[in-house]
Amino acid sequence: MMARNTDMRWRLPLVCLLWELAMIILFGVFVRFNAESDIAGWEKAKQEKNITSDAENDFYFRYPSFQDVHVMIFVGFGFLMTFLQRYGFGAVAFNFLLAAFGIQWALLVQGWFHTFENGKILIGVESMIGADFCVGSVCIAFGAVLGKISPVQLLIMTLFQVTLFSVNEYILLDLLHVKDAGGSMTIHTFGAYFGLVVTAILYRPNLEQTKDKQGSVYHSDLFSMIGTLFLWMYWPSFNSAISDHGDAQHRAAINTYCSLAACVLTTVAFSSLLQKKGKLNMVHIQNATLAGGVAVGTAAEMMLTAYGSLIVGFICGIVSTIGFVYFTPFLESKLRIQDTCGIHNLHGMPGLIGGIVGAVTAAAATEGVYGKEGLIRAFDFTGDFSHRTPSVQGGFQAAGIAVSLGMALAGGAIVGGILKLPFFGDPTDENCFEDNVYWEVPGDEESSLYCMNDSNAKPVTDP
Amino acid sequence: MMARNTDMRWRLPLVCLLWELAMIILFGVFVRFNAESDIAGWEKAKQEKNITSDAENDFYFRYPSFQDVHVMIFVGFGFLMTFLQRYGFGAVAFNFLLAAFGIQWALLVQGWFHTFENGKILIGVESMIGADFCVGSVCIAFGAVLGKISPVQLLIMTLFQVTLFSVNEYILLDLLHVKDAGGSMTIHTFGAYFGLVVTAILYRPNLEQTKDKQGSVYHSDLFSMIGTLFLWMYWPSFNSAISDHGDAQHRAAINTYCSLAACVLTTVAFSSLLQKKGKLNMVHIQNATLAGGVAVGTAAEMMLTAYGSLIVGFICGIVSTIGFVYFTPFLESKLRIQDTCGIHNLHGMPGLIGGIVGAVTAAAATEGVYGKEGLIRAFDFTGDFSHRTPSVQGGFQAAGIAVSLGMALAGGAIVGGILKLPFFGDPTDENCFEDNVYWEVPGDEESSLYCMNDSNAKPVTDP
Amino acid sequence: MMARNTDMRWRLPLVCLLWELAMIILFGVFVRFNAESDIAGWEKAKQEKNITSDAENDFYFRYPSFQDVHVMIFVGFGFLMTFLQRYGFGAVAFNFLLAAFGIQWALLVQGWFHTFENGKILIGVESMIGADFCVGSVCIAFGAVLGKISPVQLLIMTLFQVTLFSVNEYILLDLLHVKDAGGSMTIHTFGAYFGLVVTAILYRPNLEQTKDKQGSVYHSDLFSMIGTLFLWMYWPSFNSAISDHGDAQHRAAINTYCSLAACVLTTVAFSSLLQKKGKLNMVHIQNATLAGGVAVGTAAEMMLTAYGSLIVGFICGIVSTIGFVYFTPFLESKLRIQDTCGIHNLHGMPGLIGGIVGAVTAAAATEGVYGKEGLIRAFDFTGDFSHRTPSVQGGFQAAGIAVSLGMALAGGAIVGGILKLPFFGDPTDENCFEDNVYWEVPGDEESSLYCMNDSNAKPVTDP
Repeated sequence: MMARNTDMRWRLPLVCLLWELAMIILFGVFVRFNAESDIAGWEKAKQEKNITSDAENDFYFRYPSFQDVHVMIFVGFGFLMTFLQRYGFGAVAFNFLLAAFGIQWALLVQGWFHTFENGKILIGVESMIGADFCVGSVCIAFGAVLGKISPVQLLIMTLFQVTLFSVNEYILLDLLHVKDAGGSMTIHTFGAYFGLVVTAILYRPNLEQTKDKQGSVYHSDLFSMIGTLFLWMYWPSFNSAISDHGDAQHRAAINTYCSLAACVLTTVAFSSLLQKKGKLNMVHIQNATLAGGVAVGTAAEMMLTAYGSLIVGFICGIVSTIGFVYFTPFLESKLRIQDTCGIHNLHGMPGLIGGIVGAVTAAAATEGVYGKEGLIRAFDFTGDFSHRTPSVQGGFQAAGIAVSLGMALAGGAIVGGILKLPFFGDPTDENCFEDNVYWEVPGDEESSLYCMNDSNAKPVTDP
Repeated sequence: MMARNTDMRWRLPLVCLLWELAMIILFGVFVRFNAESDIAGWEKAKQEKNITSDAENDFYFRYPSFQDVHVMIFVGFGFLMTFLQRYGFGAVAFNFLLAAFGIQWALLVQGWFHTFENGKILIGVESMIGADFCVGSVCIAFGAVLGKISPVQLLIMTLFQVTLFSVNEYILLDLLHVKDAGGSMTIHTFGAYFGLVVTAILYRPNLEQTKDKQGSVYHSDLFSMIGTLFLWMYWPSFNSAISDHGDAQHRAAINTYCSLAACVLTTVAFSSLLQKKGKLNMVHIQNATLAGGVAVGTAAEMMLTAYGSLIVGFICGIVSTIGFVYFTPFLESKLRIQDTCGIHNLHGMPGLIGGIVGAVTAAAATEGVYGKEGLIRAFDFTGDFSHRTPSVQGGFQAAGIAVSLGMALAGGAIVGGILKLPFFGDPTDENCFEDNVYWEVPGDEESSLYCMNDSNAKPVTDP
Repeated sequence: MMARNTDMRWRLPLVCLLWELAMIILFGVFVRFNAESDIAGWEKAKQEKNITSDAENDFYFRYPSFQDVHVMIFVGFGFLMTFLQRYGFGAVAFNFLLAAFGIQWALLVQGWFHTFENGKILIGVESMIGADFCVGSVCIAFGAVLGKISPVQLLIMTLFQVTLFSVNEYILLDLLHVKDAGGSMTIHTFGAYFGLVVTAILYRPNLEQTKDKQGSVYHSDLFSMIGTLFLWMYWPSFNSAISDHGDAQHRAAINTYCSLAACVLTTVAFSSLLQKKGKLNMVHIQNATLAGGVAVGTAAEMMLTAYGSLIVGFICGIVSTIGFVYFTPFLESKLRIQDTCGIHNLHGMPGLIGGIVGAVTAAAATEGVYGKEGLIRAFDFTGDFSHRTPSVQGGFQAAGIAVSLGMALAGGAIVGGILKLPFFGDPTDENCFEDNVYWEVPGDEESSLYCMNDSNAKPVTDP
């Protein structure tokens, strides 16, 4: 393989500066405060809707959940990926970069689809949650290509994926009128299969030689657990963040709490069962314990019930752990899909399960459980959709899974093809999973760092 | 000592899977959403109680506090215990495991005692806080036996301790009608003395030989500070999480904030005073700074006042730091109590002080300070308890300390005896405080890891 | 240079204990709960103001933001400063100490200025936020002298700086009637220039010899990113924490979110642009990405708009990164200002920019945008200030910058002079940036620790 030029000096600044300038111009033209964050607008809304208390501002219903989601995107995903012994800077900081760009672009694209009025996009706290959600799907896809692409490639992937995410979301939520508050379909299924197709197209046949660097060291596994735990703890906020005020947010949090708890036990069980001598594997604890949150993403706000949630978590801990032990090696050797973080196990399969659970839960909804008003309220059976029945809704939910999967596969193929273009500065195979390529790493000139890594590691000389 | 079999391959999966299945069945039979999280129930409750705003749903009063408590249990306790140089995986992940199981079992047992109606347990956000609280007492006890028991033993301890916690809590809160919003008695006193008795019964005479591993390394002390700080910062949420809406939650947060701040200063003072050359000790900073939060657990929601809280924090920083320097070695050498994390100093003594402070504060309550209505409201002097006076309440509070202590000692003795049974796979003495026994540790086959530990450490060969 | 006595054994405990006793006495004399946290007071307030719901208690409007701010002060600033390879204990624990003392003293001093009624200071959730804000300015100044002063010096600096902060804040907010919700002027400008003057006065000519220790190691940079991310994520809460209920808090969060996002992209761009081979520098990512939050501190609650915020963030990422590359070395070599953390780049310049942005935004306010009522509400043009116009307000805002700067320079000079007194136990030049001086460091007696540091590090022998 020819030595490539990984010098980012002109390419990365150019992309960052030009795109940020574009954001400023587009925000200037399009983005305005919505009625609840505008000084004159809130005054007017209070009068018109006869609101007597500022506590009715949507900010107070959603801001604590927004902050939890924000932590999941930046600390959760960022630190979860620091498990690699020599890619901690790239994991946490490239995730930071992609998310910071992604939320701006998502505010625009989602705004055009959802809150576009009189030529203006109106934003509020729900827009910020939506933007963070959208970026979550890019963080997931980043997990598949972690350590193998340049920051410029990452920004390009973000640009396209945010756009496609928003199109897919619009089809599901608006056209198919599907419920997906925690994003099993729109975020996890879409993000995971998109990323898997991209990494398949960027297949690197000689990645074996960096096998050492694909492992962790003791303290990098602890850093990764910071990410795991913040994702796990705040997932109830994630799945309830954009549900309706009142009982729906309340219920979504409880269901997610239950599913995640069950998932931890089956993950531990199968991690021990599948390893020789019954020793636990940190990779499973870091990842598979979260699958329960993914898989109640669609149904959490429905009347899934606590025991229904436990069953979903139970199954997903098993599926996800088995995935790490058997599917990931299979995908790599047979299908040439190199999935660095195992997103297929954490987001792919649990996302599909989540979509199915949502479809079944919707189809099984009855007036006996929801009440007549409750059923209409839970599924928005109003306006054009006032004639829908739960079983029809279940069918549309199932269609939503298929659409998300299709969009992910097609979109991933196109974007993967674009990223293959030879001038984006991706690292050579032997320089994958190595911070040194894009970062000034402290102590590189000396021996200091390497005692923390395995004895085979050698300072990487710049190409 | 005979080599024991620490292979978890069948025992751990069996316990995890069977118990989780039991949870599913019991949740299916018993657990339902309460009125505020049920779609039809909230609709009905709004009509009946003439509620016009979803902001009145208990979710919005308590969910932010719940999330803070959740972080304390999983990141706070989990990372606090990562100070050991070779037990970081076990600390953070076994804490994760016990808490994930414990919250499910606590939802059931606490539900049977507190929210059982028509054969069903009704759960909502307060149930989740209660379950996290209950598990907190197990995390505390885990600190005493950290590094010395197997995950199967830990799960068995959790099962019993959660049950006993709930019985004790029922006696205190319902029968004695005691106030203990932040759990000085129910969580800290009970958890600490329970754990201390368990570790006393599991006494290991030859633990000296692992002395090296009982220490920290530079970065493990920093990981531990993550736990310390999240516990310290969110403790105001802990002590106010289940207080009455309005002024009580507000006041509990302020009192706890003040007590914790004072505690830091006296901890630093005594840490310096008691060490040769006046050098500070990270163990004290990691632990004793938190004692102030423990010790206002009972009285924080009362009119303890800011300066009363400062006094409590002042005393507890001193008591706790002295405990680490003098009591912990004494307990180990004279009473054969090997307290890995020093929970007697952080939870035991401050918990007792907290109970006493609560009793005194309750006994000293007057209509002048609380107002006539306020006094009734603060101590629920209604129904069967409408004839109680503050001084009588003070007496019952004191009785609550004694009951908690008695339950802890008796319960700990029984559970310790059970854990002594020889088939739970606990490590040999020389393998204590060593992740290698139950974990696939990265780089174990090579020399890589050991450069972070002291030079005496040798790879542990599996028995 | 003569060997100094850095033994803290009597000095540090004495200061901590006496000052904490003083706090207890002063709190006992002055501090009481305000109407919303007092049991009788809230009862009365509800009747008088005809409040029907506890949701109207200020606690529920501000407590989630308070907790986010609390995390920023203790974990954010604490961990941000752990980047030094041998000063992690000092960074996180001295920050903990100064903040724990500072918040108590700030409750008093700010209370005397703002909520003093009938001889009593009335405190509530807003007081806690105010105290945390005030301490934030000390954390900033600590960044300039990090590694070079003793804990006793630090406490003395805190005592004076909190006092001066409160005086300055009183002049700005009450006398000049300036708006500064996120503290661009009162917190950042004041804190940064105060710290810079102090470090200039404590100039150490021979600091070159500790050059190794002024750098980071791989994992210390990751610990630092924990601080960075929690600051970055929670900054929207910081800038909105004490804004008016309703639209103002909502808007402040959105503006800050936008500014911070833009700032990340220009930081990455210039970090790559200014380094040879285009490699990114972690110091820039850790710090300059936050400048956007500093610089919308004054204007975030105004109608700055999302694109206005993007522009501010865009500029500050550039200014701050250039500052690290060019200004910091210049300040050190030419002006003898040794700024350990580069606070001039993160808080100094962005703070000034923030003040200017606030003045311009205020001056540009129109009835067309704010509405007639909105304009009065946004700038409190009531009472003595009912005749102010936006352009006059802009002038006063500009005066606020000058006052903050003047107070910082004068105050810093006086306090720096006091800290120069020879009996506070500061380290010798060769012992700067070294935990060993004030801490029991694990493994110091052995070779263990040093494999993590660069090969030149030698155990420091106590002087």
